[in-house]
Amino acid sequence: MLDNHNPLPLHIQLKEILLKEIRQEVYEEKIPSERELMDKYSVSRTTVREAVTALVHEGVLEKIHGKGTFINRSHSVNEWLGYLSSFTETIERMGMESGAHLLYQGTGSRMEIAETLGVEEYYCIKRLRFADNEPIAIERHYYPLEIGFILKKYDLNQITLYEKLELEGIVLQDAEQRISAENPSANDAKLLRISENTCTLVAQRLITDPLGKPIEYYHSIYQADKYVFSLKMSRGVRVV
Amino acid sequence: MLDNHNPLPLHIQLKEILLKEIRQEVYEEKIPSERELMDKYSVSRTTVREAVTALVHEGVLEKIHGKGTFINRSHSVNEWLGYLSSFTETIERMGMESGAHLLYQGTGSRMEIAETLGVEEYYCIKRLRFADNEPIAIERHYYPLEIGFILKKYDLNQITLYEKLELEGIVLQDAEQRISAENPSANDAKLLRISENTCTLVAQRLITDPLGKPIEYYHSIYQADKYVFSLKMSRGVRVV
Repeated sequence: MLDNHNPLPLHIQLKEILLKEIRQEVYEEKIPSERELMDKYSVSRTTVREAVTALVHEGVLEKIHGKGTFINRSHSVNEWLGYLSSFTETIERMGMESGAHLLYQGTGSRMEIAETLGVEEYYCIKRLRFADNEPIAIERHYYPLEIGFILKKYDLNQITLYEKLELEGIVLQDAEQRISAENPSANDAKLLRISENTCTLVAQRLITDPLGKPIEYYHSIYQADKYVFSLKMSRGVRVV
Repeated sequence: MLDNHNPLPLHIQLKEILLKEIRQEVYEEKIPSERELMDKYSVSRTTVREAVTALVHEGVLEKIHGKGTFINRSHSVNEWLGYLSSFTETIERMGMESGAHLLYQGTGSRMEIAETLGVEEYYCIKRLRFADNEPIAIERHYYPLEIGFILKKYDLNQITLYEKLELEGIVLQDAEQRISAENPSANDAKLLRISENTCTLVAQRLITDPLGKPIEYYHSIYQADKYVFSLKMSRGVRVV
């Protein structure tokens, strides 16, 4: 239930509850009406509207004029850029269930990656990622050995890497990310169950700690028809 | 020359000068040494380093250990997200020459576009865009009729649309942008001189004025091996 003493605004609490209910398949196709939600959670119409509008905006819900507000189960995953989120966090924010299948873990020394991390040898974790049991991404994480060896002791089919790193006291401060597109390799295409002629969206990023030391180099490909990046931009005064 | 009374920091003035010189092919393959730049522009080593480092960071220059700083003419175009830039601005910031070839202009009424702009009929401008005479993007701009009719009077093979809109007193305040990837249509592939099986990077955005009224809906495809988006991200405290 909503908690008036919680510092989170009521509409955000309600949004989180609705997301959880959507994930748990509490509703069949559509969510209750505004009036029903107002009564069920003892909140104002404004609070209900703000929560529902945010979910519509994120693609989780869809309003159909005169029919109600429907759960949009076929939408693309929408990752908001700016805040550094893990795949698990992004998928769960969409009201979907995230999954991971470990494909490879071990050390490596490919020059361009080692140089990016400023090391000679690195630790690599490669996982196939799922949203509602569908394979939609292949993530490759590369770490300096001392960080890789920390992660090694966990079950990599289960854990959220960033959460674990943070629990281990490692601060993921900043990241610089590049977004591009490319055709997948034959092997990656097979894992994602797509053709090699299909586009994938590619994200690469380098995460650094508060002192600017590299923590992770990340490379991920996403099925292009199931994943989009979104961001807000402005055109104010700017120094070149 | 650099101007001490100019409010722009010296390293930014120097960076702009170097970019202009690179664009005008003042240098063959490499730029002068730090010492030469210090003497030529009467600035400190720190100023030279800051200017050059910024250009290396943007991919315009490349440092080769023991050999000097080279002009990187084969780099991808790198668009920094966050600030809303026109294609022309992005290309020129890379030290390249931008070009436009008008493919189509006229009114249209496709429902999903008209609805996005909140109008019944819109004005469309479709242009093939060049960087150093190579076709790298196809841009489609959709405007409410009153804005389209303003742009119509200009030579659309020449002008920078956003600059013109701003000169006409239209304020491009905010934009929400989505980035995805897709295979090009047969016609677009031909214009970009690529195969239909090649990936293109796709940007779509809705620009609004300070009152939130739509000014432009934009759809652009970029050759994926010649264009990347970059951004900085952080993982601080955040409200969901």
